[in-house]
Amino acid sequence: MSDTATKSTKPEIHAAGQRGPVDHERRAQILETAHGYFKSYGYAKTTVGDIAKALNMSPAYVYKFFESKQAIGEAVVREALSALTGELDQIAATAKPAATRLRQVYRTVAERTTSMCFNDRKMFDLGVIACEEKWQVITDYQAYLFDLIRGIVISGREGAEFERKTPIAETTAAIQMTLEMFARPALLEQNLDDPVGRAENMANLVLRSLAP
Amino acid sequence: MSDTATKSTKPEIHAAGQRGPVDHERRAQILETAHGYFKSYGYAKTTVGDIAKALNMSPAYVYKFFESKQAIGEAVVREALSALTGELDQIAATAKPAATRLRQVYRTVAERTTSMCFNDRKMFDLGVIACEEKWQVITDYQAYLFDLIRGIVISGREGAEFERKTPIAETTAAIQMTLEMFARPALLEQNLDDPVGRAENMANLVLRSLAP
Repeated sequence: MSDTATKSTKPEIHAAGQRGPVDHERRAQILETAHGYFKSYGYAKTTVGDIAKALNMSPAYVYKFFESKQAIGEAVVREALSALTGELDQIAATAKPAATRLRQVYRTVAERTTSMCFNDRKMFDLGVIACEEKWQVITDYQAYLFDLIRGIVISGREGAEFERKTPIAETTAAIQMTLEMFARPALLEQNLDDPVGRAENMANLVLRSLAP
Repeated sequence: MSDTATKSTKPEIHAAGQRGPVDHERRAQILETAHGYFKSYGYAKTTVGDIAKALNMSPAYVYKFFESKQAIGEAVVREALSALTGELDQIAATAKPAATRLRQVYRTVAERTTSMCFNDRKMFDLGVIACEEKWQVITDYQAYLFDLIRGIVISGREGAEFERKTPIAETTAAIQMTLEMFARPALLEQNLDDPVGRAENMANLVLRSLAP
């Protein structure tokens, strides 16, 4: 699945609001500094001016790479998610039964999202803003999860592990709703007493629903 | 609906933080006025002083009935939920197949919560605060939903409509998580593009998971 991992860095190049040569060292510095500021002071309280100043750049120079603070926020979230989606790609690509892979997807999403968002309240806030404002990176992540689930369900159907009667789009959309309870910070927050246990319980319900 | 309204005052008698004779006309006036203020100005911006002033009462007099603003908020939410739980009780009590009743529960929760919280943004805010601060009325509502689901699943198992292998507590808890997506304002907000359609899709997944 390293193909997909490679693919997942591609869309950043043309991601909305982002300019300049992606591999530029300056771009990486801006992102790193922005990430640090978002963690320490929160996304809302950080300005492009703060980031520029910390790097001894002019705001105009920062705007060469990112057309807005949101564009920087999008890139930070995208980077944070890329480790998770890399892991999910690996899970999906194993030869294990589809049921095992789906279970691992729930567990991994619950664990990683918890550690990304709840070790660090400021990153939680960034995630909530990104979801509320429907940033492109979130729409892309949702599309990614849809495809991930769809792929696992289809392979489970082909292997006669799962039922085949329900339209694939319907079953995928319903499963995605249950997975998003652990993927969206504001939803996960409701399950924080035991995110992994609840994710497992949810995966079990979903797997019962998929029984042939 | 006046029956339900009358019934709903009963559990309030011993509700946390609430004082004085429940049937007292003054109590009803306070609640009605508070509801109006919460709707117009929001729960956060309303003070017990505002409510008292609007009724030509002293704040001390209001505190005879409710020990805090939260206690008033709890009573307002409880009243709003009592119409919904009355409807759900009726659904659960019909002789229809358990699958039909469960489907109606999802639809009713999605419809009523949408109209309670999204016709009126201020009431949405009140619901979110109540959930975030884990008010007693919310804990009670969650316990109510758990029992409601459990009852329907058990009757479906008895009628051989549903599978009986999964421990009832596990299946009930998982179903409750999927129902809460439509019962909690902050979660429902994520499904506002089509709350009823999504609730139906979720109910279908749950019903597939319950197949014997």
